[in-house]
Amino acid sequence: MSIAAALRFNPGDKVADIDTNATPGFDGSKSDAAPVQAERSERLAHLQELLFANNKAADDQRSVLLVLQGMDAAGKGGIVKHVVGAVNPMGVRYTSFGKPTEEELAHHYLWRIRRALPPAGHIGVFDRSHYEDVLIVRVHNLVPPDVWGARYDEINAFERELVDGGMTLVKVAMFISLDEQKKQLAERLDDPTKHWKYNPGDIDERLQWPKYQEAYQAMLDRTSTDYAPWHVVPSDRRWYSRLAVTELLITALEAMDLSWPPADFDIKAEKKRLAKA
Amino acid sequence: MSIAAALRFNPGDKVADIDTNATPGFDGSKSDAAPVQAERSERLAHLQELLFANNKAADDQRSVLLVLQGMDAAGKGGIVKHVVGAVNPMGVRYTSFGKPTEEELAHHYLWRIRRALPPAGHIGVFDRSHYEDVLIVRVHNLVPPDVWGARYDEINAFERELVDGGMTLVKVAMFISLDEQKKQLAERLDDPTKHWKYNPGDIDERLQWPKYQEAYQAMLDRTSTDYAPWHVVPSDRRWYSRLAVTELLITALEAMDLSWPPADFDIKAEKKRLAKA
Repeated sequence: MSIAAALRFNPGDKVADIDTNATPGFDGSKSDAAPVQAERSERLAHLQELLFANNKAADDQRSVLLVLQGMDAAGKGGIVKHVVGAVNPMGVRYTSFGKPTEEELAHHYLWRIRRALPPAGHIGVFDRSHYEDVLIVRVHNLVPPDVWGARYDEINAFERELVDGGMTLVKVAMFISLDEQKKQLAERLDDPTKHWKYNPGDIDERLQWPKYQEAYQAMLDRTSTDYAPWHVVPSDRRWYSRLAVTELLITALEAMDLSWPPADFDIKAEKKRLAKA
Repeated sequence: MSIAAALRFNPGDKVADIDTNATPGFDGSKSDAAPVQAERSERLAHLQELLFANNKAADDQRSVLLVLQGMDAAGKGGIVKHVVGAVNPMGVRYTSFGKPTEEELAHHYLWRIRRALPPAGHIGVFDRSHYEDVLIVRVHNLVPPDVWGARYDEINAFERELVDGGMTLVKVAMFISLDEQKKQLAERLDDPTKHWKYNPGDIDERLQWPKYQEAYQAMLDRTSTDYAPWHVVPSDRRWYSRLAVTELLITALEAMDLSWPPADFDIKAEKKRLAKA
């Protein structure tokens, strides 16, 4: 089975059963993965150029949106650096969603999300997203239950609108074990070049893991739709999660059936003009 | 002399005298440059991480803005792909400025520029910029001479404000010969995977080269300030222009004297908390 197919969340799947150390759809080791990653990164960069070119030359309105969710230290930053970093920055629109600002809080929770959507021909990357509004918001009761409870359907309707507008959503939930998270946070404490990545609040969130599991389960159950399914990426092995997200993006782009757009000008006539110019 | 020093525009320098095929500050060949480029790209990525880290952990408000100007096919896109592409997308804010939209035209010409400025801790990349408002606008008389004529001082005042706010501007004017431009445009016409990059309007602009030379000369003369100097990058050899812009960014970042920010939390206490969590 392909990596993308193996990672798709299916109704009934349980968060508690996720083997965070597994490598679904890939039989090899870390050293086997390295050359595969290099080759697949090139494939991804090629497909991104096709997406961009089709918008420029043929007004193709389609786009891709990668949504990254996961607990602290699950490796979202590594995906951005290594997977997104392999494609041309010209075609990427990256946004990190942190604690909402006052201005953001004064608007509907989807306001800041809509403003950050990728333009046609681009790959958008959401490092956290509107799903925080049913994750941290739910765990900490930042709004009443009937308010966050209504958001699952609202999000589905919002994403339906995006998909109808030509956007392909690649929704990725990265899962690490509590042990692996401890190891990662300890590294941030031990290494002075990683202190800036450490946030004491991460431990507070860690202590809420059972509540987060519930919130993730509800999120996956209620917002993994046919048109915008979730993918669950076991992320204890970072080399695997990077390869997996690369494959998910490639699968999304390949489904768009892209090829080089035909010239929208008269090639012969332009050659003549250029020769004389 | 370092590459950065060799490229600095000095009052009195003439655009007509630029040797677009030269490699100022670098004595080697293309194959000599390859390992240097690899090593310097890593250095740049490291410095960008320091800039980002200091904002996150120490609220350092500084930022960098790379401004790329040059005729069509001068290689701006290659700089974005290869030089900017070497740093973490998380810390980059890329904007391409094309023909202004109706909304943009309804505002002051610096309106769209201000909206695209990099946040603190980021490297902004302007692929074309406010300088189009004294280049294409001047060449085609899109506004009366007294209007574009006033813009040099306006731009200097604007950039003074940016620099006072903690931004380092790296202004790069890329120059290719008319022969090299013809070769590049011909390649776009010959190669079906490059047709999307070709724009018949490029030939119209090419025919205005003498007028553009005048406009570039005035731009360099009037807006190369102590606080935001221009650098002239000979760009017939793409391997050189990439190395040169890499060096210009490194020089700007090194002048910021960045090091890993100290922890803004009690490391020992956090280690204890983590052990128990």
